[in-house]
Amino acid sequence: METSGRTTPSDLQGAYARVRAVTERLASVLSAEDQTVQSMPDVSPTKWHRAHVTWFFETFVLSEYIPGYRAFDDAYAYIFNSYYEQVGDRHPRPERGLLSRPGVEDVARYRSYVDEAMETPLGDPDQPGLRDLITLGVHHEQQHQELLLMDIKHVLSRSPLHPAYLSGPLRRAPGHAPKAGWIEHDGGPVEIGHQGAGFGFDNEFPVHTVHLTPFGLADRPVTCGEWLSFMEDDGYRRPEFWLSDGWAVVNAQRWEAPLYWQRDPDDPERWLQFTLSGVRPVDPDEPVCHVSYYEADAFAHWTGLRLPTESEWETVAISHAKGDNVLHDDVLARGAPHPRPTLSTNAMIGDVWEWTSSAYSPYPGFRTAPGAVGEYNGKFMVSQYVLRGGCCATPAGHVRPTYRNFFPPGARWAFGGVRLARDP
Amino acid sequence: METSGRTTPSDLQGAYARVRAVTERLASVLSAEDQTVQSMPDVSPTKWHRAHVTWFFETFVLSEYIPGYRAFDDAYAYIFNSYYEQVGDRHPRPERGLLSRPGVEDVARYRSYVDEAMETPLGDPDQPGLRDLITLGVHHEQQHQELLLMDIKHVLSRSPLHPAYLSGPLRRAPGHAPKAGWIEHDGGPVEIGHQGAGFGFDNEFPVHTVHLTPFGLADRPVTCGEWLSFMEDDGYRRPEFWLSDGWAVVNAQRWEAPLYWQRDPDDPERWLQFTLSGVRPVDPDEPVCHVSYYEADAFAHWTGLRLPTESEWETVAISHAKGDNVLHDDVLARGAPHPRPTLSTNAMIGDVWEWTSSAYSPYPGFRTAPGAVGEYNGKFMVSQYVLRGGCCATPAGHVRPTYRNFFPPGARWAFGGVRLARDP
Amino acid sequence: METSGRTTPSDLQGAYARVRAVTERLASVLSAEDQTVQSMPDVSPTKWHRAHVTWFFETFVLSEYIPGYRAFDDAYAYIFNSYYEQVGDRHPRPERGLLSRPGVEDVARYRSYVDEAMETPLGDPDQPGLRDLITLGVHHEQQHQELLLMDIKHVLSRSPLHPAYLSGPLRRAPGHAPKAGWIEHDGGPVEIGHQGAGFGFDNEFPVHTVHLTPFGLADRPVTCGEWLSFMEDDGYRRPEFWLSDGWAVVNAQRWEAPLYWQRDPDDPERWLQFTLSGVRPVDPDEPVCHVSYYEADAFAHWTGLRLPTESEWETVAISHAKGDNVLHDDVLARGAPHPRPTLSTNAMIGDVWEWTSSAYSPYPGFRTAPGAVGEYNGKFMVSQYVLRGGCCATPAGHVRPTYRNFFPPGARWAFGGVRLARDP
Amino acid sequence: METSGRTTPSDLQGAYARVRAVTERLASVLSAEDQTVQSMPDVSPTKWHRAHVTWFFETFVLSEYIPGYRAFDDAYAYIFNSYYEQVGDRHPRPERGLLSRPGVEDVARYRSYVDEAMETPLGDPDQPGLRDLITLGVHHEQQHQELLLMDIKHVLSRSPLHPAYLSGPLRRAPGHAPKAGWIEHDGGPVEIGHQGAGFGFDNEFPVHTVHLTPFGLADRPVTCGEWLSFMEDDGYRRPEFWLSDGWAVVNAQRWEAPLYWQRDPDDPERWLQFTLSGVRPVDPDEPVCHVSYYEADAFAHWTGLRLPTESEWETVAISHAKGDNVLHDDVLARGAPHPRPTLSTNAMIGDVWEWTSSAYSPYPGFRTAPGAVGEYNGKFMVSQYVLRGGCCATPAGHVRPTYRNFFPPGARWAFGGVRLARDP
Repeated sequence: METSGRTTPSDLQGAYARVRAVTERLASVLSAEDQTVQSMPDVSPTKWHRAHVTWFFETFVLSEYIPGYRAFDDAYAYIFNSYYEQVGDRHPRPERGLLSRPGVEDVARYRSYVDEAMETPLGDPDQPGLRDLITLGVHHEQQHQELLLMDIKHVLSRSPLHPAYLSGPLRRAPGHAPKAGWIEHDGGPVEIGHQGAGFGFDNEFPVHTVHLTPFGLADRPVTCGEWLSFMEDDGYRRPEFWLSDGWAVVNAQRWEAPLYWQRDPDDPERWLQFTLSGVRPVDPDEPVCHVSYYEADAFAHWTGLRLPTESEWETVAISHAKGDNVLHDDVLARGAPHPRPTLSTNAMIGDVWEWTSSAYSPYPGFRTAPGAVGEYNGKFMVSQYVLRGGCCATPAGHVRPTYRNFFPPGARWAFGGVRLARDP
Repeated sequence: METSGRTTPSDLQGAYARVRAVTERLASVLSAEDQTVQSMPDVSPTKWHRAHVTWFFETFVLSEYIPGYRAFDDAYAYIFNSYYEQVGDRHPRPERGLLSRPGVEDVARYRSYVDEAMETPLGDPDQPGLRDLITLGVHHEQQHQELLLMDIKHVLSRSPLHPAYLSGPLRRAPGHAPKAGWIEHDGGPVEIGHQGAGFGFDNEFPVHTVHLTPFGLADRPVTCGEWLSFMEDDGYRRPEFWLSDGWAVVNAQRWEAPLYWQRDPDDPERWLQFTLSGVRPVDPDEPVCHVSYYEADAFAHWTGLRLPTESEWETVAISHAKGDNVLHDDVLARGAPHPRPTLSTNAMIGDVWEWTSSAYSPYPGFRTAPGAVGEYNGKFMVSQYVLRGGCCATPAGHVRPTYRNFFPPGARWAFGGVRLARDP
Repeated sequence: METSGRTTPSDLQGAYARVRAVTERLASVLSAEDQTVQSMPDVSPTKWHRAHVTWFFETFVLSEYIPGYRAFDDAYAYIFNSYYEQVGDRHPRPERGLLSRPGVEDVARYRSYVDEAMETPLGDPDQPGLRDLITLGVHHEQQHQELLLMDIKHVLSRSPLHPAYLSGPLRRAPGHAPKAGWIEHDGGPVEIGHQGAGFGFDNEFPVHTVHLTPFGLADRPVTCGEWLSFMEDDGYRRPEFWLSDGWAVVNAQRWEAPLYWQRDPDDPERWLQFTLSGVRPVDPDEPVCHVSYYEADAFAHWTGLRLPTESEWETVAISHAKGDNVLHDDVLARGAPHPRPTLSTNAMIGDVWEWTSSAYSPYPGFRTAPGAVGEYNGKFMVSQYVLRGGCCATPAGHVRPTYRNFFPPGARWAFGGVRLARDP
Repeated sequence: METSGRTTPSDLQGAYARVRAVTERLASVLSAEDQTVQSMPDVSPTKWHRAHVTWFFETFVLSEYIPGYRAFDDAYAYIFNSYYEQVGDRHPRPERGLLSRPGVEDVARYRSYVDEAMETPLGDPDQPGLRDLITLGVHHEQQHQELLLMDIKHVLSRSPLHPAYLSGPLRRAPGHAPKAGWIEHDGGPVEIGHQGAGFGFDNEFPVHTVHLTPFGLADRPVTCGEWLSFMEDDGYRRPEFWLSDGWAVVNAQRWEAPLYWQRDPDDPERWLQFTLSGVRPVDPDEPVCHVSYYEADAFAHWTGLRLPTESEWETVAISHAKGDNVLHDDVLARGAPHPRPTLSTNAMIGDVWEWTSSAYSPYPGFRTAPGAVGEYNGKFMVSQYVLRGGCCATPAGHVRPTYRNFFPPGARWAFGGVRLARDP
């Protein structure tokens, strides 16, 4: 994590207050039971997210910078450590759903206790490294806001009752997805990585040169309508489109559509999807979402094209993209987060994360921070693929063209979609 | 299930009201989160137990006997069916912990709705089979009260916080377990099975003759102190005492003590145990509890003796046993259920279930009831072993000398202990 | 193991020589590769069987009774110990198929070496316990002859080439299975267990009294034709017939017919079976074979009847059975072992093992021998079910009415079939 | 696969004859049993390799180019297809060890049959595509020669007897590994990919520009002596060096040294290694071998350095490397293949494959060949890492600086080692 920008104490206080309030707002529509369930090892319970982001401030800020700081509960250091090996043992990830205690009210008290204690460092953030750590904590909590939404979507989807996270109809603007066009690039050396004044995670640094081969990038993501054509052409049953590992997963898991899609029980030819506002028909104009890297790659093979590299994506996003989607700090401002129909082109930030063909690797010269906080990104740089662009569940201010998200190639519970690229 | 006894409507109304109230009392000390967690596939969440016993009355009584009865929620038939294949599909058991919805308040409403509807059949229980089904439902709910306590003990034990179900010290009477003596039996033909006027489950019938070989039965169960001697003699590390399957489990699961025992972190020579009132020292005078059949059998081999058959146990329990422990309808009447120290001998009903060497099989001439309710017991008669005697978590009126409890040989989360037998 | 009979040295020498020759004859039709493959953890490679039975003589006879005996290869004690914990560590069972070395020629040399060394104890078998141990070794090797055939049948069945163990058509006598009749028994006390002068395994002792309830036993085993009726009546798809554990296995393993049955690729309505002489049509007059306890029990439920207990079976076998099938020392004498059509009734020894409803438990007063050889039977007395009667792959002289075979309820690779019983 | 070079028929005939003879030579020291065992799903039996490479010629050459060609055995198309989805179903990879049949003699006959049939196309290779396919088949068989050696090493290592593949002492030249130095590179654009006249696999094309950042590359691989220092510094027990996935594997598999290393039973401080010529002491001057990507990366972190990218490696190998090791067509020419001590520097081809930090991805503009043969490389381009350089088990003529080998990050049974890189 590095920040080149400077913030005043009150900026930081405001950012802290806002991010903390948004997390609580996201949890507030959920019952205690909803906040407790873990539906698969990758998913964490809502209350765990609420406590873990709090533990992050407690561990990396309060315990380090406030002399004599007394932890809210010593056991929480064990329970709410996600993966930081260097700060001690931790509760096993697949067992987070066994934690009936601490309860949601204990977690609320924990959050208040830490918020109160944070007033001191927020009021005087000029000790070495402090401002950067608080800023990191704010962005860390934003990341977990998106994870919280991804995770609760998975939890609720596993209930036979298919409950909505937020009810109310999904509103959509009228119109249809335009035909896709191409943004062409002549190739040659380009600068890649975070250059601006604002915050960036350590994995976006350092800036370096990459040589691009000429290519074209689609000016909009693949839609559900196009995905239905792939399905109708037996895309999920023809091995010639698939990576070998992907084909094995398709067969083992019996995939036949994106995650959360289900056949309409009253009309098996028609597809429904589970969303954060309940079950509704698949909209052909929406960008396809909740597909794995394997599926994204197979779809690209089916079209005879390919996925972009992350350098290609970033280069176009910085130089060609039109006014991006407006994201809100409070991702619930427009109702339950869901990708909107693609009614115009070139917006590369905002509705679905877009799989790239780039394995998640360190940039040349990458260095991790010393100490446990250095475990933030570097140790995950293997067997994962980079996604770019943010999604409907990403808080405003959290994403930018250089932002590198990453998931294993079989993961589908992120809001991941597809943008195609082609060779000349 | 068969009942020979006759009850008046008001008896039945009273029994129904009592059992329903006790279940709610058992759940009332738990938070919504506590009631939602499933800590292993064998365990069900508290709120699931509360709803399932209600579903039993709805399915087998209300839907059958009340014309036009309208189910509280059609989805519940799928969610709260435990294992009755003949009434339709059901939610997979290992996924009961994914059910954030229905929540505890929905479950409370469901219980009230069914209780109200039950007033009609309870007021006029004389239709064919009705009284028996309601009586079965009452005993079924009692069974689940014990399961609820077993299950929540396991859930809470998995929390790093080791929370108590009911706090408050475990009280014990002064004194020590007496030296064990022997009740001798000359063998010969005996009558086995339920003969009295009261309720019995189908698996206790029919009465039949068994020929016993002369034997002796210990006059008290094995204590924790004796178990500690077994452990100190390397009982868990010497294969010569163990059944082959048991030895494989000991090594795979790294068993070195009964379930819920843990070494005192401050003194690794000392053993603590997790109880429903929290962590406390192992009391050498208590009957050992939470051991598997494998462990019970290995302990018996270590002593050079053996476990009793269920016929031996039942014969002694009926003819020789002294005044049994007083059980209460409300098993919380004495605080959190826990086996009391064995301060006198011959009481065979009440503190711990006692493993017998008898595989759980049908009695000669056993018949199941027609229809789905016939799935109650018969289909589990394979690969399980019979336990006799009831335990500290069994409601009064639910256990008797002919009662056959059963678990697989590796199960430890029941309150299962050991009583030894010997050949002459 | 106990023997009451007396044998002369030359009897013993003859028995030893015969059993050793038969094992080699069974292996002689197999290639080195055939003898090496392990197709599932329960199966052992042929060459492993050949060596293990040799190790048994080496360990329990030569090492104990021949001063200064030098083992053929010290590593073999580790490799060819099956499960005797008390004689040291052993090679893991599921990895027997990794043993490319020792090769079949090494094994042949090992057998010769031990045969030569055995001449001394065979010539003077009167030291305490020696004769009994050699006799036990002979019967042990006979057991492994049957296992060898069961195992190689499984190995060959997994080859896409479906090779025959012994080619040549299966000959059958003309005629059809008669309608089944009933042998009725009035119940009452009976003596159970091995009483004769010959050899018996320890699990057949001691003789004891069992009280039988009146019952009838079918006078022939269930045929493949009857099994086809069960299948046609959706027997494998109707949970009401099945034990709960069995139903789970049916679904997990997608069982729809006995093991080794397969649909005719040219006519999916017709069933073929893989046999030791290759693939051939299912013969409706043969006793059904290669079914699990779960399937046997489900079939019995479908008929409205039940399986017999082992006491019932033994009582009838001793008092009512007609001239049993002639078994041969060399089970290949009639070609590849396979159950013959049931053309007459009452023969209870010989074509298929018959599942009983009795869990495999010690008889009252059962004692194991001291030392490692005592691990022979007792430690397997859990979670298994008794089969009676012997089968087409059992050597002559190895089976008798009191013989207790046993397998877990899901095992199908033994030659296990079904005989029905009924209550009056 | 593309070839720019031209070969005369007799070149091709010679290459074909040589490669076929070498495969048989590699198998000739193995027994039928050795050739049958599969020790893990990644490993194939020797006889399977012998048959599969033959199937490759039969399927892609004979069936395509010889009118009326009759397959040796139709079942072989199913059994010996490795992963080509487009030529039909195939036998499951993890079950190759179940194939007792076809036996080694059947396989020898199959090889002769195909060799004879190949005389026609080899004599007249000028039909479109034919020469390229035969050349591909020759290189394919060379790949399998190395796999055969990797696989049999693993098979023999799992035997409690630790048998040698080829006995005879490993000879080594006197002397010690020199201190490592650095080959520095100034960065900037470089051309990557296969440019020469000879054969290259499809994954080496097309040539393209990559922009390098300045870096240094070690002039020799990491030695066993250096690896022992890593181990002594608790390298396998300190999470700070490890990728998160790697740390999980280290703990799950209890890795504490490279594959095939074992503590000397007589002196637990001393390390031995299993080699193709049996167990012998670890030689500190040898390049470390049989380490995974996870271990290579952790070692690099421990030194504070990093692994090279494949572009860095290739650039140095082409421009800076000194006379490479002489490889032989017959890798047994120097005895059992084993990495030799590193007595001089800069040789980058020959003793151990070297892990790069590059995920295995298509080069810009990569295209697969049409049809099933196009499945050769492209479909494996996910979740694998590139290794460069060849090893002691690679046949001469099979490796070159642009050659891209690849394995998953946890694989250790390849002859994989480590060369370090550094930033300026």
